[in-house]
Amino acid sequence: MNAVDLKSADLLAQMAGAIASGSIEVVDLTHTLDQDFPVIILPPEFGQCARFRMEEISAYDHRGPAWKWHNISLCEHTGTHFDAPSHWISGRDIPNGNVDEIPVNRFVGPVCVIDCSAGARENEDFELTPEIILDWEKSHGPIPADSWVLMRTDWSKRRGADYLNMRDDGPHSPGPTPDAIRLLVDERGIRGFGTETVGTDAGQGMHYTPPYPAHFILHGAGRYGLQCLNNLDRLPPTGAVIVATPLKIKKGTGSPLRVIALVPGKDA
Amino acid sequence: MNAVDLKSADLLAQMAGAIASGSIEVVDLTHTLDQDFPVIILPPEFGQCARFRMEEISAYDHRGPAWKWHNISLCEHTGTHFDAPSHWISGRDIPNGNVDEIPVNRFVGPVCVIDCSAGARENEDFELTPEIILDWEKSHGPIPADSWVLMRTDWSKRRGADYLNMRDDGPHSPGPTPDAIRLLVDERGIRGFGTETVGTDAGQGMHYTPPYPAHFILHGAGRYGLQCLNNLDRLPPTGAVIVATPLKIKKGTGSPLRVIALVPGKDA
Ligand SMILES: [Mn+2]
Ligand SMILES: [Mn+2]
Repeated sequence: MNAVDLKSADLLAQMAGAIASGSIEVVDLTHTLDQDFPVIILPPEFGQCARFRMEEISAYDHRGPAWKWHNISLCEHTGTHFDAPSHWISGRDIPNGNVDEIPVNRFVGPVCVIDCSAGARENEDFELTPEIILDWEKSHGPIPADSWVLMRTDWSKRRGADYLNMRDDGPHSPGPTPDAIRLLVDERGIRGFGTETVGTDAGQGMHYTPPYPAHFILHGAGRYGLQCLNNLDRLPPTGAVIVATPLKIKKGTGSPLRVIALVPGKDA
Repeated sequence: MNAVDLKSADLLAQMAGAIASGSIEVVDLTHTLDQDFPVIILPPEFGQCARFRMEEISAYDHRGPAWKWHNISLCEHTGTHFDAPSHWISGRDIPNGNVDEIPVNRFVGPVCVIDCSAGARENEDFELTPEIILDWEKSHGPIPADSWVLMRTDWSKRRGADYLNMRDDGPHSPGPTPDAIRLLVDERGIRGFGTETVGTDAGQGMHYTPPYPAHFILHGAGRYGLQCLNNLDRLPPTGAVIVATPLKIKKGTGSPLRVIALVPGKDA
């Protein structure tokens, strides 16, 4: 039997109640922002992304007797973060391509999670291919248009130097092939693509055609990216909804953010 | 007739569908972060909150041929932002009182909006009193436990110097009385309190007992604050749900954030 369609006021009331009761679980997909969280490192001739830093303004002391607070600095692309179309040259002319311009209903949406953790454990350059996506669809049904697709690799469990995994020829970490991203964007019409690694592209993504295919193809089509996600092993393959709300940075190309997932509970 | 209770998986699927179709509207309660947005100004002997600043790292040029991005700096309490219990001395020992420690299910919840815009238009020091709250409840029913309560003043429509509204004796802007906050926290058990002004307290809130009663009482009881909210005139008095997800700043006392509201549509 199909579920009855609720009116929107009842839906929102029931959703708030289900979150309060725990029958919808809220899962934090975000890493803690601190000075130690790694940021992408580019060849030295390029401009670099700043790590997170914070400076105490007062702490219930002579600088502010009743309050504590900090000033902070970081890059738009530091820590768990959102990539807007304007981040990439292919998306520079996309309408509403900055984080302050994206329609806010784009920030809440259904999510499909493709588990590549076994492959990524064996091979640090593991590729998400069209075959893996088509196999996933045999078990879970077609990826719905306008969904987020997240590539689970358990890379978020790595710490320190193992996270960027730099070698003499650059970073090594898993990511999608150009054909996989084309399938997701052109044929499935996804809203965006997210990873546990420092970028939506593989560490060696510069060697594909086009280089950095996830960035190039996603943003050229006006789609979004999420990076440095955490806790993807706590999401079901389908049925969760994520909320990913970038800061409203004027002409921002991306934003650190708190990503949460609403996950159906045991009653489902 | 009461609505049928849906299972959580159906609820999430219908919610995602309702947002996609527009029958649930997503409203942005956030101001744009730019260099011009005012921050609170304290007496000069105290530490000060930084304005938002951004610096270009590259813009599809020699500093990064295919990408554009910025480094940014600001205060935890710059722009539309969240106050955690640890922000105030009364909340310094509250368990899980920093933004990285708050359980993430606290970031999605129902909201009541008390319209004080007519009063605030007449009187820049307009006070939200227990009488106004009790009157509101006569029309809209009791404020449910664990709700957000937002004080609408239309102050968000002010620009430039009119926003902080500084005079020789300090800032003048509307806010709640100590008794109003005690009623909301102690008797109604609200989750948090939000305003359109630069703080949860009135501009002249230092003259109450206790000084800055919203900060003191809310945070001392482990509750949250939202400030510099926008578009509160687009919310119904009851029935909307807000999503307010602070950045996961390690030991952060607050955070700039994107606040969105899910608002029942015309079918309701
Ligand atoms: Mn990025
Ligand atoms: Mn604050």
